[in-house]
Amino acid sequence: MSIPYTRIDRQILSELLEIVGARNLITDLEKMEHYSHDETSVEEYGHMPEVVLTPTTVEQVASIMKLASRYCIPVTPRGAGSGLSGGAIPLFGGIVLSLERMNQVLEIDEANLTVTAEAGIITNELNEQIKAKGLFFAGYPMSLETCFLGGNIAENAGGGKAVKYGVTGRYVLGMEVVTPQGEIVELGGKVTKDVSGYDLKQLYIGSEGTLGVITKATIRLLGKPQFASDLLVPFTTAQDAISVVPLVMKGGIIPTSIEFMDRSSLEMSCSYLNESLPLEGVGAMLLIELDGSDEAQVEHDLMAVGDLCIQQGAMEVYIAEDASNRERIWSVRRNIAEAIKVFSPVQSLEDVVVPIGSIPSVLPELKRLAEKYDVTIPCYGHAGDGNLHATIVKNPASSMESWHSIEPKILTELYAFIVGRLGGKISGEHGIGLKRRAYLKSLTPPAEYRLFEAVKKALDPAMIMNPGKIIW
Amino acid sequence: MSIPYTRIDRQILSELLEIVGARNLITDLEKMEHYSHDETSVEEYGHMPEVVLTPTTVEQVASIMKLASRYCIPVTPRGAGSGLSGGAIPLFGGIVLSLERMNQVLEIDEANLTVTAEAGIITNELNEQIKAKGLFFAGYPMSLETCFLGGNIAENAGGGKAVKYGVTGRYVLGMEVVTPQGEIVELGGKVTKDVSGYDLKQLYIGSEGTLGVITKATIRLLGKPQFASDLLVPFTTAQDAISVVPLVMKGGIIPTSIEFMDRSSLEMSCSYLNESLPLEGVGAMLLIELDGSDEAQVEHDLMAVGDLCIQQGAMEVYIAEDASNRERIWSVRRNIAEAIKVFSPVQSLEDVVVPIGSIPSVLPELKRLAEKYDVTIPCYGHAGDGNLHATIVKNPASSMESWHSIEPKILTELYAFIVGRLGGKISGEHGIGLKRRAYLKSLTPPAEYRLFEAVKKALDPAMIMNPGKIIW
Repeated sequence: MSIPYTRIDRQILSELLEIVGARNLITDLEKMEHYSHDETSVEEYGHMPEVVLTPTTVEQVASIMKLASRYCIPVTPRGAGSGLSGGAIPLFGGIVLSLERMNQVLEIDEANLTVTAEAGIITNELNEQIKAKGLFFAGYPMSLETCFLGGNIAENAGGGKAVKYGVTGRYVLGMEVVTPQGEIVELGGKVTKDVSGYDLKQLYIGSEGTLGVITKATIRLLGKPQFASDLLVPFTTAQDAISVVPLVMKGGIIPTSIEFMDRSSLEMSCSYLNESLPLEGVGAMLLIELDGSDEAQVEHDLMAVGDLCIQQGAMEVYIAEDASNRERIWSVRRNIAEAIKVFSPVQSLEDVVVPIGSIPSVLPELKRLAEKYDVTIPCYGHAGDGNLHATIVKNPASSMESWHSIEPKILTELYAFIVGRLGGKISGEHGIGLKRRAYLKSLTPPAEYRLFEAVKKALDPAMIMNPGKIIW
Repeated sequence: MSIPYTRIDRQILSELLEIVGARNLITDLEKMEHYSHDETSVEEYGHMPEVVLTPTTVEQVASIMKLASRYCIPVTPRGAGSGLSGGAIPLFGGIVLSLERMNQVLEIDEANLTVTAEAGIITNELNEQIKAKGLFFAGYPMSLETCFLGGNIAENAGGGKAVKYGVTGRYVLGMEVVTPQGEIVELGGKVTKDVSGYDLKQLYIGSEGTLGVITKATIRLLGKPQFASDLLVPFTTAQDAISVVPLVMKGGIIPTSIEFMDRSSLEMSCSYLNESLPLEGVGAMLLIELDGSDEAQVEHDLMAVGDLCIQQGAMEVYIAEDASNRERIWSVRRNIAEAIKVFSPVQSLEDVVVPIGSIPSVLPELKRLAEKYDVTIPCYGHAGDGNLHATIVKNPASSMESWHSIEPKILTELYAFIVGRLGGKISGEHGIGLKRRAYLKSLTPPAEYRLFEAVKKALDPAMIMNPGKIIW
């Protein structure tokens, strides 16, 4: 990228100060460090911003974008920084625009079953507020205790309930966006169907802040399912466990989630949390959740899915119905990524997604790559969506130099297999960001990639909006 | 629009002939008449093409687009011509590109629960082929006996099952598109989650053929619900009936459909079909469908919804469980539009959509407009989605001149109320096309409209792809 971006000088800083006030402008290096990275490796991907702004109103966001447009300054919108692909990293310096102070629930509309909130609200806080009204937002990213609603939308987050309920984007009815030129645009509203013009909402969903800043959203809510239970199902081998997934999906009952956790993922998370699960002889486990408005129905479905697992060689079927046991198990699942990171900081957390029928084919390929390159590849994820978080972990005995040489080779081989052989995609929910942009470019047919570029250029002709992400 | 389009001369015709062959090229005026209109009024919106092509392969489509690009000839893609907003009308002449000969189911993939078919397949034919495998496509436009899959996607069709299952777009996993420049692009695939680059699929869905030609799609299937029943619920007044809709939606049970039919819609359709329904004292009816995989559950939900209707003043609750009775009632519903057209050919079939809580507010406004302008406005539609097909019908006693003067006034007032007062949209599923483009422009905030234009210009810079639709 050869855009001649303007460096932020004293004059520009004073204009920014006028827009957001001293409380919402950070230039202190120590404080800015937090905004130089997300959950990807700081060493590999981190980059310092020139200034961090924490605007409190959409008008301030618009003024920032107008100024950035005028001077040609890159702007990187940021949610909680819980991203896993480097999407919120200010690769070209410039402004990090953090939504952290725009964090209010603006309206819970019970008549229309919607909630309208600012982009900076923490997902779980939103959930708590609507739960009190007996309502339910089906988005459930594993980082829900920290991530922001705006980030969920910008990344089109998936998560633990997507098998039944779909990903975040399905629930976004309305959206307020600030364009790179600083115009405030309201898209959609509270209607559940709409073909009045191009569906721009859908274009912003999952666009990783490269087309505009999402400042507010109206989310479709559902009635809270009254009953939910989990099955925890151990298998002797990972292959046995994963092979059950397509069978469950074809069985006519749609679980809320089917999570896969191999033995090493389970061990690391349990150890990290000081938790214990019965792991003797276990190669992998499935965590299957079912929910519904009718208790008998949920029970019936639990039994049917449990029976299917037993027929397919499950060692055991544990049922967790009470809230505290369910939370214990889900906590193990949610903390796998963090646990692997603590145990093996040098790693690449992957997010491949394949057609559900092809899920069993993924594990042998991971095994082959692990052996070929002398790494370990713990694997877990949203198996019911075909979305597996294989995590390539450096052999502690090997050098960093060797890691830097083999990591791209492993990813190239893995992605070629996933995309070329299985018709899958390199990211199901974590996004392209910095981390996968080179792979996206080499794996996307040129005609399609030109369409990506055309869309980017149309909406952000000055290339100031989170430059260097998705396309470059 | 002041694009200097090239007229099709003998030289160009011979090049087109070479691409598609004589069997797939129509210039006969009588035969072309069929392609000059859709289901909107021929007099008001019809326009003759210069040539109609019926290519049989995607390579032919690509060659046509390359030629059209080179010469700057407008190309209007066409499905079954069952559209209701003039989307398939060749406003600037040029080429009508009919998908009618690309009508094959290419693959039913039972392992991945997908079907891949060419764009020209009739929706019901697709349904029949997958039904045989115990599978189910949740798209159910009222025109399913004639409309094409490609048209459903290009218009993002809603229909009779959208309350529970959502609109067509939700089920499109993959898509083959030919760009205006004649490049063949495969988007998506068979994965259910994907954030690998911008979601271009979603941009083409509902874009009314203005960004490219959809030639093939991969659709996500569900297991066929084993049980379904309908409630037919008469009320003494239309207002009573419509007021029940938000209450049903909030009750925690999600019906497959909640269709609203006022008395005049019912009378016209029954008369058109020579069908009889018990209409004495009836002001309107709701048709509520419930489905599921468990018979007891469906029965339970039927009773609960029926009880709610009775509490809210329903005159009666008729249950239709057997296939023939269910088809009789649905046939009445599906044929309302056609019936009104036969009885009152001079009319404007509307497609407004409002937040579900605002549905009861729509009828009094329709009544006010009907009285003010001396027209009748039969009303029916997918009330569970907030989507009402109010149909403004000319008073037979008044002149065509007066109709032409009042129709835009009524629509202007109606749309201002729907959009400005209720936060609704002017089209929920029929699209903008020719019919509503002026209203879309005047009702869309300029900053948003500029985004529409930017997207159009980015993907179709020569403005040859169905020009004059959506934006102009």
